[in-house]
Amino acid sequence: MRLALLAAALLLAASSATAADTRIPAKALEQAAQLRERALADDTGWKVTESLTTEVGPRLAGSEADARAVAWAKAKFAELGFDRVWTEPVTFPKWVRRSESAEVLGPHAQPLAVTALGGSPGGTVEGEIVRFADLAALQAAPEGSLAGKIAFVDYQMTASRDGSGYAQGGAIRSRGPSAAIRKGASGFLMRSAGTDNHRVPHTGITRYDEGLTPVPSAALSIPDADQLGRLLARGPVKVRLAIDAGWDGEYTSQNVIGEITGRSRPDEVVLIGAHLDSWDLGTGAIDDAAGVGITMAAANLIRQLPQRPARSIRVLAYANEEQGLHGGKAYAERHAANAGRHLLAAESDFGAGRIYAFNTGAPEHARAATRQIAEALAPLGIEYAPGKGGPGPDIGPLAAKGVTWAWLAQDGSDYFHLHHTADDTLDKIDPAALAQNVAAYAVFAYLAAEAEGDFGSQAKPAP
Amino acid sequence: MRLALLAAALLLAASSATAADTRIPAKALEQAAQLRERALADDTGWKVTESLTTEVGPRLAGSEADARAVAWAKAKFAELGFDRVWTEPVTFPKWVRRSESAEVLGPHAQPLAVTALGGSPGGTVEGEIVRFADLAALQAAPEGSLAGKIAFVDYQMTASRDGSGYAQGGAIRSRGPSAAIRKGASGFLMRSAGTDNHRVPHTGITRYDEGLTPVPSAALSIPDADQLGRLLARGPVKVRLAIDAGWDGEYTSQNVIGEITGRSRPDEVVLIGAHLDSWDLGTGAIDDAAGVGITMAAANLIRQLPQRPARSIRVLAYANEEQGLHGGKAYAERHAANAGRHLLAAESDFGAGRIYAFNTGAPEHARAATRQIAEALAPLGIEYAPGKGGPGPDIGPLAAKGVTWAWLAQDGSDYFHLHHTADDTLDKIDPAALAQNVAAYAVFAYLAAEAEGDFGSQAKPAP
Repeated sequence: MRLALLAAALLLAASSATAADTRIPAKALEQAAQLRERALADDTGWKVTESLTTEVGPRLAGSEADARAVAWAKAKFAELGFDRVWTEPVTFPKWVRRSESAEVLGPHAQPLAVTALGGSPGGTVEGEIVRFADLAALQAAPEGSLAGKIAFVDYQMTASRDGSGYAQGGAIRSRGPSAAIRKGASGFLMRSAGTDNHRVPHTGITRYDEGLTPVPSAALSIPDADQLGRLLARGPVKVRLAIDAGWDGEYTSQNVIGEITGRSRPDEVVLIGAHLDSWDLGTGAIDDAAGVGITMAAANLIRQLPQRPARSIRVLAYANEEQGLHGGKAYAERHAANAGRHLLAAESDFGAGRIYAFNTGAPEHARAATRQIAEALAPLGIEYAPGKGGPGPDIGPLAAKGVTWAWLAQDGSDYFHLHHTADDTLDKIDPAALAQNVAAYAVFAYLAAEAEGDFGSQAKPAP
Repeated sequence: MRLALLAAALLLAASSATAADTRIPAKALEQAAQLRERALADDTGWKVTESLTTEVGPRLAGSEADARAVAWAKAKFAELGFDRVWTEPVTFPKWVRRSESAEVLGPHAQPLAVTALGGSPGGTVEGEIVRFADLAALQAAPEGSLAGKIAFVDYQMTASRDGSGYAQGGAIRSRGPSAAIRKGASGFLMRSAGTDNHRVPHTGITRYDEGLTPVPSAALSIPDADQLGRLLARGPVKVRLAIDAGWDGEYTSQNVIGEITGRSRPDEVVLIGAHLDSWDLGTGAIDDAAGVGITMAAANLIRQLPQRPARSIRVLAYANEEQGLHGGKAYAERHAANAGRHLLAAESDFGAGRIYAFNTGAPEHARAATRQIAEALAPLGIEYAPGKGGPGPDIGPLAAKGVTWAWLAQDGSDYFHLHHTADDTLDKIDPAALAQNVAAYAVFAYLAAEAEGDFGSQAKPAP
């Protein structure tokens, strides 16, 4: 009985590979193979990444450099010869970092390397440190037990190719401060959500739950968290944490968009992109100038083909991803009604390591086409990973509107050595790995744009 | 004729291995073999290093932490059970660092990670950057050509086991500012004398030649030097450099000395040691808490033997090495008349990497004994390196007074990744490599203290 059911299911699966299925034409596959090889020899991705990190440098959302980054992106799309370049406004609250410091007080007095978490208020607090091994331990502390004290969540993230250690590290950053406030804490410190061993603390956005009074919140560098742990092993430790930072009105930045116009279905687009903003500590090289370079260069290679692909290739440089996916949300809202015209959408926002896996969120009728794209990517060392992956950060809001995601999984083994630190600079990027990314994005975007049939994107009715 | 001379010389050399030669007794060699194995299993070196870097942390000469470091060293010698512990005053000018920053001005505005060089005056200067590939290029600039400008020496040190790349990097730091002032510069920047790629600039002392008016002088982190080079490739770059630092009177610190008293010739000593002070940016782990841990632990292992060695083992924690060998000079002055009673002297001040070579500056009559010590060190992976080496920094002044140096060469391949940076913290030390160092110092010091005969030390007549 079970075997019979299985056989029926298999038959159904086989029969579903019908003429109605989405397919990539053979001619497009041939073209993609050439595109792939040209991309590996092309240094446009590197040059774009170098240009953004050098000429603009750090570009915190809402800062003076945010406007320069927008101007840079418009000029770069134009300089590369994209068919259309435009911007769409993105408005968000502006957070400003002015200064931050921390020091151990008393007989072992010494400075600690810290960085304020994005969204932290200013203020100077002194208090005894209470250490917690992880977020759950903090959440389990008795009510009121942290009154007048500084909570310290000392969780050590582990490095992995898929960055899965960030689930816990990122959760501590997002939810730790609110949990600490609920227990009465006057300040919050965490071991950076990182995997390096340098004196470069990792910043990143935090959020305070409604109804709570925010307290100064910061991350210690990994060696400083080690040091604080060693000091705590000797007895009580008192720390002074001083932050000058805070929210300062609203700011309107821009999503910057460049498009290669499709030859036969210009209103249908393959959306690729990356975020234009960065944290302020480094020059935002792996996060996310690399993604901007990869996707701009990939589309540019498609532009250089003898003829435009059937559909348009849209490259989106998102405003303010770091503080809450503001650019991704704005684009999704604005284009929700046209979700069905976005064939596939992918964001490159996990550094500059080689891509090792590919998948899409497409339904059954486009699985064969997904596999065809994966096969075209295979010479780049990329595996087809059915059942895996998901939308990149800024694609999430669009996926919620009905757009099918594509997933080009980057090797993130080193990503959290650098993520959100002063160390996120151009020298950390391997130009050959970057070119492999460009090749993958070019092949993927081109083939999706040439597909006969869709990948299941469909505007969802407004709730 | 030449052959005959050679034969005569060889005969002389052979005959010089007479009963008058210094020798290590067989019993001492047996004891040393046991000492070596015990040292490899002992974690005292690690514990001492951990204690100093954790409890005192950064200990800039003349700072509040300098006094804490002196108190720590006295207490640690006592706690370990050294036979004698005392201090000797060391007076030096006190330099204070308060703040430092630099930023690119104009269309590519962005901050640069800098640290003031030790000895730099305070001041804020703005000027166009003039880049030089090395010190010679700066020295060759036309007179007056840097008026109102900031000199930038962009020399990239290379890493090597023996640290030889530091000769040029260190010279730029010491002599670059004066060279820049002579050409009219209002400020001085250098690519850090380092071999890492992190946003941690390398500080270190500089000196301004007599008659020159010092200008603010700082080192850029390696990635920032790269960045400045990329910006300069695009056109003129203006930078603001702001330093608040300067000299502030005199300070008296202490050389802290612990001794294991010799059983038969207590007035004769084998001198080992390391410097107690550190720069202020890191916790002075590899520079030079490791050396303090290595030498304290080595003497402590000798203390634990069934009987004291013939001569005394003296461990010296030098005051203020970083700003001009003040502790080494003070000790040499004070003990010059007793130079002949210092059998051999060695300083551990090149990190915590494994020791790979050994030699002494002993004359011919003690070469055989030097070789015997080297043979006892060979199981630790240490080679006898006749004709190589020299005195460690604080041993230089003593060697000039007639004391024979010993050289235990540490692998410094990674040393300039960390040297004088915020990244010089405990986590960078490999406990197993540290134990190998302890074993080498224990074997060396014990055998020297048991030698029958001397190593050529002899007080030089006052000039």
